[in-house]
Amino acid sequence: MPTALTLCGKTYREFAETIERFHGWKAPGVVIGGFMVDLAQEHVGTGVEADAIVETIHCLPDAVQLFTPCTIGNGWLKVVDWDKFALTLYDKRTREGTRVWLDLEKTRRFPAVYNWYMRLVPKQELPLDVLLGEIERAGRGMLSSAPVRVNRWHGKSKKGEVSICPRCGEAYPVVQGGMCLACQGRGYYEQR
Amino acid sequence: MPTALTLCGKTYREFAETIERFHGWKAPGVVIGGFMVDLAQEHVGTGVEADAIVETIHCLPDAVQLFTPCTIGNGWLKVVDWDKFALTLYDKRTREGTRVWLDLEKTRRFPAVYNWYMRLVPKQELPLDVLLGEIERAGRGMLSSAPVRVNRWHGKSKKGEVSICPRCGEAYPVVQGGMCLACQGRGYYEQR
Repeated sequence: MPTALTLCGKTYREFAETIERFHGWKAPGVVIGGFMVDLAQEHVGTGVEADAIVETIHCLPDAVQLFTPCTIGNGWLKVVDWDKFALTLYDKRTREGTRVWLDLEKTRRFPAVYNWYMRLVPKQELPLDVLLGEIERAGRGMLSSAPVRVNRWHGKSKKGEVSICPRCGEAYPVVQGGMCLACQGRGYYEQR
Repeated sequence: MPTALTLCGKTYREFAETIERFHGWKAPGVVIGGFMVDLAQEHVGTGVEADAIVETIHCLPDAVQLFTPCTIGNGWLKVVDWDKFALTLYDKRTREGTRVWLDLEKTRRFPAVYNWYMRLVPKQELPLDVLLGEIERAGRGMLSSAPVRVNRWHGKSKKGEVSICPRCGEAYPVVQGGMCLACQGRGYYEQR
């Protein structure tokens, strides 16, 4: 690892510590995600207010939330559950930006990364430090990018009219019907 | 604000700074979310490995990600887009936990909070400091909670078999069909 490397405006050590603190451990997917964010930011340019879309719920949302101003809760990051290891940063005004993805063809040069992503080797046979070392060596060498224009899911999701559910008494969006979804039997919990 | 107040293990000042740094500003919804997490954690107890479900994409996911070990990317936080201001922390082993919600009836005693949530007053007529002051005074006084058992969406979402999309050459889950969703025309971007 060249000591002069900076990623997402941080030294590599700060970068790694930021991941561990938030994500709980230095997960390979979040580290790769950091390289992806770094590349996308370079294309989009500084001084551009960029929103983000990530195409998997695994790891990648945390890289975007840590290394850009976009979070789930502030609405600038959207997460699509496609299980593709890809993200797009785009100018929220023009909707033009850059999509970056883990390029499987390119990862063939980095067998630990390829085997990890394709899950060809059991976890216990792929020590974390070996995998992380290869990810750090690969850096942008495992990524591809393309200029895109975003045509869905851009902009803030607007809240609709709020009403009180006649059954549970909680606030819910009227667009869901005469009761909230939980009271319609689509909840995820039972009282105990 | 009593100076001795701690929230989610932080002084109120640290709590507020943590929100600003991650979310971009001291958003009322994230501050309320912090009080909700604090209450849920007290019920669930320390020493319990708790997973989280939040019932809106607005603000609340950030409170959980900041004040618990659960993030979107590490899979311990699930986000349900129901637009209900509620969250559940639960023991990942027993699936028993506590659901906490912003109780609209209780917020009637705190008119700024009620008017903000129900969007009865235009933003420019509800200064942020007035709203935040009332949220801080309300604290748990605006929340309700109930013991629940989680019966859906618990556990890790497992990744299925990965294949290479014959059209774009990217990795995708085979369960989606013969091509990835983007190549099936369900994408969010066009090349430029």
